[in-house]
Amino acid sequence: MEEVKLHGMWASPFVCRVKWGLELKGIPYEYVEEDISNKSPSLLHYNPLYKKVPVLVHGAKPVCESIIILEYIDEIWPQYPLFPIDPFDRATTRFWIKYADNKLFGSQLLFGSRSREEEEKAKAEAIEFLRTIEEQCLGDKKFFAGEEIGALDLAFGGIAHWLPVLEQITGKILLDADEFPRLYAWTQNFKEAAVIRDNLPDAQKLAGLYNALRDKQLRSAAQ
Amino acid sequence: MEEVKLHGMWASPFVCRVKWGLELKGIPYEYVEEDISNKSPSLLHYNPLYKKVPVLVHGAKPVCESIIILEYIDEIWPQYPLFPIDPFDRATTRFWIKYADNKLFGSQLLFGSRSREEEEKAKAEAIEFLRTIEEQCLGDKKFFAGEEIGALDLAFGGIAHWLPVLEQITGKILLDADEFPRLYAWTQNFKEAAVIRDNLPDAQKLAGLYNALRDKQLRSAAQ
Repeated sequence: MEEVKLHGMWASPFVCRVKWGLELKGIPYEYVEEDISNKSPSLLHYNPLYKKVPVLVHGAKPVCESIIILEYIDEIWPQYPLFPIDPFDRATTRFWIKYADNKLFGSQLLFGSRSREEEEKAKAEAIEFLRTIEEQCLGDKKFFAGEEIGALDLAFGGIAHWLPVLEQITGKILLDADEFPRLYAWTQNFKEAAVIRDNLPDAQKLAGLYNALRDKQLRSAAQ
Repeated sequence: MEEVKLHGMWASPFVCRVKWGLELKGIPYEYVEEDISNKSPSLLHYNPLYKKVPVLVHGAKPVCESIIILEYIDEIWPQYPLFPIDPFDRATTRFWIKYADNKLFGSQLLFGSRSREEEEKAKAEAIEFLRTIEEQCLGDKKFFAGEEIGALDLAFGGIAHWLPVLEQITGKILLDADEFPRLYAWTQNFKEAAVIRDNLPDAQKLAGLYNALRDKQLRSAAQ
């Protein structure tokens, strides 16, 4: 088997999507931690356009962008399928993944808001996003993909682990357990799965990083 | 075979991507033109989240988003494959399609610029986009997909037909034939293919629509 390397950054939910996918499939890989302020020549070589993690290198072939990597590993290693087999279900999964990626509400809420008005707007959008995925996408299923974790669960991983850290920092609860009982239950089911639990960044370390980023942002906004 | 319906709007390059895909595969379908200012109950029913075209309805199943539709029809009807068969080539194709969709430069350049500075910035970005796809993506190939038109060509269709209309309206040439000889040649090859040529919106009608939109935008910016 050709060597598999994953270039990542510990705090990135996009990198975790790929880690989880590889772990679920039982694919051995070497993890290369990138220093985002001093990216490796390999990363610049493999992803010259965006210079971003994650990059999966399979043999000598680089694959960029977390969801494209998940589709790729699903095609190369069919064990534990991440995407549904049925073409219509696959299309629906891709639709919701795209929706998730269009609504990167957390960072906007945390870092992007310059005024109280903007912040309220971002919060309302985030709540609407959570309601939409709870009602229209999750429903009464245990996981987004059904009885087992699939690509859609990995795509929504940010809600399970990163959002609570943001909530803690900002003091604003978005995913209220009473308001979103099914989605909240999903976050618990998801984080309890062994492969996920063993491959999550440390919450305190993450809070430290986000706090530092937030301070920097607020300072630059105040200048 | 189950009925295939495509809900579209004549001027949309995203709708054309799907039309071209269906035509290349020889799939009979019924086309339903939507009035964007008065959307049909069917469209609202099939795409409640975005309420946007294109929507492909296969039997009773709706598939939304142009690229997701192309992936779907490629899985359902394997004749004339739109995406490469090889998983790495598929991943690369998906990467460039995503790049194309992140750089919707035309509308930004035309409608989004409030100041001369913003306009110059949008123009520089558009030129960089064109250079990137000419050098890194097209290279010396006849089509982006190789010898035949594929999904990547359909994704870049906006450059071949819609961009020239925008250039005509704004009086700004972005895709200069001397500066981008290979990409310019591609636009000609692409538009000459029978399936594309026979399924392009009328350029004058398109110019009329864009002019009207532009006037509206400029008026609202001036208020």
